[in-house]
Amino acid sequence: MKVSVKVPATTANIGPGFDCLGLALPIYNTVTIEETVLPGTGVEINVFADSDIVEQSSLEHIPLDNNSIVYKAVELLYNMIGQSPAELRINIHSNIPIARGLGSSSSVIVGALYAANELLGRPADDLALLSIACEIEGHPDNITPAIVGGLVLSSQEDDGSVVYRKLVWPEDWALTICIPDFELPTDIARSVLPADVPIKDAIFNAKRLGMFIQAVNTKDSELMKFALQDRLHQPYRMKLVPGLSSIIENLKHFDNVLGCVLSGAGSSILIISEKSNLDKIRNVVKETWAEQNIKCEIRTLPIENNGVQIINNED
Amino acid sequence: MKVSVKVPATTANIGPGFDCLGLALPIYNTVTIEETVLPGTGVEINVFADSDIVEQSSLEHIPLDNNSIVYKAVELLYNMIGQSPAELRINIHSNIPIARGLGSSSSVIVGALYAANELLGRPADDLALLSIACEIEGHPDNITPAIVGGLVLSSQEDDGSVVYRKLVWPEDWALTICIPDFELPTDIARSVLPADVPIKDAIFNAKRLGMFIQAVNTKDSELMKFALQDRLHQPYRMKLVPGLSSIIENLKHFDNVLGCVLSGAGSSILIISEKSNLDKIRNVVKETWAEQNIKCEIRTLPIENNGVQIINNED
Repeated sequence: MKVSVKVPATTANIGPGFDCLGLALPIYNTVTIEETVLPGTGVEINVFADSDIVEQSSLEHIPLDNNSIVYKAVELLYNMIGQSPAELRINIHSNIPIARGLGSSSSVIVGALYAANELLGRPADDLALLSIACEIEGHPDNITPAIVGGLVLSSQEDDGSVVYRKLVWPEDWALTICIPDFELPTDIARSVLPADVPIKDAIFNAKRLGMFIQAVNTKDSELMKFALQDRLHQPYRMKLVPGLSSIIENLKHFDNVLGCVLSGAGSSILIISEKSNLDKIRNVVKETWAEQNIKCEIRTLPIENNGVQIINNED
Repeated sequence: MKVSVKVPATTANIGPGFDCLGLALPIYNTVTIEETVLPGTGVEINVFADSDIVEQSSLEHIPLDNNSIVYKAVELLYNMIGQSPAELRINIHSNIPIARGLGSSSSVIVGALYAANELLGRPADDLALLSIACEIEGHPDNITPAIVGGLVLSSQEDDGSVVYRKLVWPEDWALTICIPDFELPTDIARSVLPADVPIKDAIFNAKRLGMFIQAVNTKDSELMKFALQDRLHQPYRMKLVPGLSSIIENLKHFDNVLGCVLSGAGSSILIISEKSNLDKIRNVVKETWAEQNIKCEIRTLPIENNGVQIINNED
């Protein structure tokens, strides 16, 4: 039996929504799990670079043994039905660049979970898979949109359950994702965050997130400009992404830019704007990074309103 | 010349919205400013208890001299046009109980500013009055709904301007305000708050505020139950409001209660529920407080969608 699952990239945080806001983008990883017939071969995991923005060399340091998140995800599903993963070949076709704040780890966790769930006759429902996936990843902001698509506000509660709501992304707003040629591992990006923050920064972020949700509901560009600010993670991570502060500064000349924020923990940058001057906006980013000898791939993309998809299930 | 201005009570914070969420309630203070003819009498301020929930004795310690917020508000307006307040009689008819987290100070600041502005031929527009009022009060969460009415998310920016948006309160949700017979001065309620908070509490509140705004926009009672929680102020103030934790506990038996939160800094409590079992809900509060020898006044009220109103302007 062989199952293939396609999972979108995601950009999380989106300004004020640290660890709770995320949206899906039409860049995909595919996870295929196949039962192999040779006993004793165990679980074999392979990763293939599938596009020009993912280099095969960047995949070389990804753990492919039983310590990998992919193995853990599959093992959890097998354990649910009282088994251990046996002879499996897991192939990951990777279009989502690694360690760029685009949810590549969430995508393979979700892909592996859904593929294993299909293979085992669906022992878990969607909510259970969501909860398990968030548990493995540690936070729901990438996982939830990877599963349900669209723009999502989500929270993993103390009992492990995930509360989420999907919002309708205003059609007039463009998403431009700027992917630099350097990686920023999430554990490093998390290590620079403080344990405590000033209460005024907590208030600052709460009201910005409130403004964000209101702006999206009412398609209010003016409010969105106030909303797309953050004091909980971006100021601390600024130094880890060379050029970010200059890019933000240089984009201030564009009235139609609503915000320029870290994508997840970085290194990518997300620009939210109205749909004009998009060429110029992309050029500003390209040129600012070029001054610092940073190459980049920039794409203006629609939101992906579908999440995970089972694309193949062969007996 | 004589001007009277009517200003609604307000309940702020409303769970996760510390210092940024507030809504207006149909309980009113009236501020009347009259130019008197006797030179040298200066500014005379009088406060009258106008209803059974405001006792005249509770008004006795309110400063009525040039240190009062009412005088300051009036002085600011006169200073704007290069004058000082001269012979004025300011009468405040008070229906909003003092130091109960119902925006009594905001109401008299707003009333005094609007009355003085009328008297002086409107030197300031609404946005300027909003900004001045927030500056005097220190935060916009009571001031903004007192001026514009309804449910409001607001933020005073670094340049002093106030960004706000009015939201439509779902008709199916009832507001029950429970006013105990003890005062809790805001400065004491603020003194128990820490300067720094755990970053996880900051994330907790931000996502709850996001949920609140989404729940209101989509009339989502299930989400509102998750939204009406707070870790920035309520846990620290719990000990200042005897009975609050028992009331929260006792209300957990009611499925239709969406949340039970401090009104502003307390001492009042706001219960948000669907419109059933309202008598029982009020009884639970009354009985729980009675066990602690606390008398209270409980009212289920509609939201007041109008803010400040000039009710009389006599030449």
